Amino acid sequence: MERRKFLTGAALAGAATTLSAPALAQGKKEMVIVSTWPRDFPGLGLPAQRLSARITELTDGRVDVQYFAAGERVGAFDSFDEVASGNAQAYIGADYYWKGKHPGWAPFTAIPFGMTYTEIDAWIKYGGGQELWDELADEFGLKNFAAGNTGVQMGGWFNKEIESADDLKGLKIRMPGLGGDVMAKLGASPVSLPGGQIYENLVSGAIDATEWVGPYNDYFLKLYEAAKYYYWPGMHEPGAQLAMGMNKSWWGTLSKNDQNIIEAACNEENSRTMAETNANNGAYLNRLINDHGVQLREFNDDVYEAFGEASAEVIEEARDHSPLSKKIYDAVLEKRAELGAWTELSDTAYVQKRNTVLNR
Amino acid sequence: MERRKFLTGAALAGAATTLSAPALAQGKKEMVIVSTWPRDFPGLGLPAQRLSARITELTDGRVDVQYFAAGERVGAFDSFDEVASGNAQAYIGADYYWKGKHPGWAPFTAIPFGMTYTEIDAWIKYGGGQELWDELADEFGLKNFAAGNTGVQMGGWFNKEIESADDLKGLKIRMPGLGGDVMAKLGASPVSLPGGQIYENLVSGAIDATEWVGPYNDYFLKLYEAAKYYYWPGMHEPGAQLAMGMNKSWWGTLSKNDQNIIEAACNEENSRTMAETNANNGAYLNRLINDHGVQLREFNDDVYEAFGEASAEVIEEARDHSPLSKKIYDAVLEKRAELGAWTELSDTAYVQKRNTVLNR
Repeated sequence: MERRKFLTGAALAGAATTLSAPALAQGKKEMVIVSTWPRDFPGLGLPAQRLSARITELTDGRVDVQYFAAGERVGAFDSFDEVASGNAQAYIGADYYWKGKHPGWAPFTAIPFGMTYTEIDAWIKYGGGQELWDELADEFGLKNFAAGNTGVQMGGWFNKEIESADDLKGLKIRMPGLGGDVMAKLGASPVSLPGGQIYENLVSGAIDATEWVGPYNDYFLKLYEAAKYYYWPGMHEPGAQLAMGMNKSWWGTLSKNDQNIIEAACNEENSRTMAETNANNGAYLNRLINDHGVQLREFNDDVYEAFGEASAEVIEEARDHSPLSKKIYDAVLEKRAELGAWTELSDTAYVQKRNTVLNR
Repeated sequence: MERRKFLTGAALAGAATTLSAPALAQGKKEMVIVSTWPRDFPGLGLPAQRLSARITELTDGRVDVQYFAAGERVGAFDSFDEVASGNAQAYIGADYYWKGKHPGWAPFTAIPFGMTYTEIDAWIKYGGGQELWDELADEFGLKNFAAGNTGVQMGGWFNKEIESADDLKGLKIRMPGLGGDVMAKLGASPVSLPGGQIYENLVSGAIDATEWVGPYNDYFLKLYEAAKYYYWPGMHEPGAQLAMGMNKSWWGTLSKNDQNIIEAACNEENSRTMAETNANNGAYLNRLINDHGVQLREFNDDVYEAFGEASAEVIEEARDHSPLSKKIYDAVLEKRAELGAWTELSDTAYVQKRNTVLNR
């Protein structure tokens, strides 16, 4: 650890020597972004790279971004410390990876039985969510924005059918965030692995089951080679919001104009990632089924009921962690009820009626 | 008309005399935006004003926006001509208002039984939608971006219950776009009125029924004073996408950097408007019911079936208009099926299961 930090510190100093004289002359700010996603990975890595390039582009080069995918500078799960320490200026990732530091991070990605994309976006932007996120991030010297969403995730890849909650017992399953804790309540053994390590662990049998995202993202991990049952809908990440977390001291050195542009770039990428995912999921689901023999399975009502009970316990435990955790989870549960009632009357009711009429 | 154009032309010339010397000195671009929305109107006017201010802010004043609400420079429905003619640089509005110029405009706002917000956003950004929009806009000398969405709309305000399609016969109803044509097929008399004129027409009895947007937007129009039955879900605008349409010649004079910033500002406002609407609809629906005695009614399956048949006819007629119309509508119908199947498996299935478990 010390050696790595020394090395990256040296690399940075070298970069500074090479780059900072002309950069300073033009008022440039260097912005090193580390990411939790593999390089060039469709649906997550590519959007993170797109956002990084967009910040340089929109600021006309005043903020000069250098992007490092997972493992290129630090490991995926070291991204948080790299930025909080000021060693890098920002990370792009999923904030529920940091639930061990504070359980309040989880709802800013997703919690089991939580909000969909349209709900969490309403909460963050116009329902008080950003203010709570700022309060939490401030405790770690960070400033975070939503910067992507992958929507309702699939329930995961299994080697056997899940017909009751009992079928989950003893399964070693890759599932991060509070979703993993729900699996533990139901007798499974959850592990948190970055995306780049899932395939090898599933193929080797080190894990029995896994979730990742949805058809578009999962296709490229080739999970179908090691598991055939693909369950829907996932209860664990119904609108996984991705984040850009910046070192707050560095953020404070930017001009108001560059701060606004970075915020706009994050807001833009938030909906772009969601749009790209939704645009591709249907087509890739068909490929998984038709080209790779994947079998689609719907979680039945009994399994969902068990998920629901375990989720309520997990959320209560996370909420009891601290006053700030209580404040965050209370807000999430209140907004879930209010926004969820509207979703049911609008999007859900409409899609049901439309699809019923069209498929008749 | 001639007199108005002369007057606004004179006003512009005056403004140019006052403003252009310092503006030119700083490389500034004047951008006059006209809008189809009333000034300061929550949910539509305010978002349009926010986007206008954001463009000035993000470009650090290089693009200097002057915003005119409906009627302040031209009437709401004259916005298109004002921009296509080069008299103003951009409009903010809903492109289905221009279906009389070309029926291909309608799907870029909404069509009956069309796409929801997440579906249309996927189509526009990553499913070929923007390219078709560009092709259509180009014929009118425009360049358009999505710049807002109000989601699944309510079905409208009625003075009597709608228990079968027969109950629609003879109703004078305010409904623009192809939704109005569906009403005509079912024997109603649709009219297209800008938002600022709906209330007076409903109160005076000039119209019997109307739709506008949803609880948040409708609350401020006070439609509950003149109609008590509030129907859901609307079939006519399931994800009404708002637009900024720019004069294409003017767009071509901007630097690549300013073009990128305007695009990012539109993308940001697109999701902000949606988030703000979703954040408020539930609370305002409760106010309408509890404070104003509004009665909520669900369209029954027979009525929806009739809507579906009439919609199919209306869409076929719009499609038959021209080769470009055929190209646009064929793409919309194909994407509706593909994206709609994914929505059903993800958002719709999840929200149903979640709400069932939580409400048990």
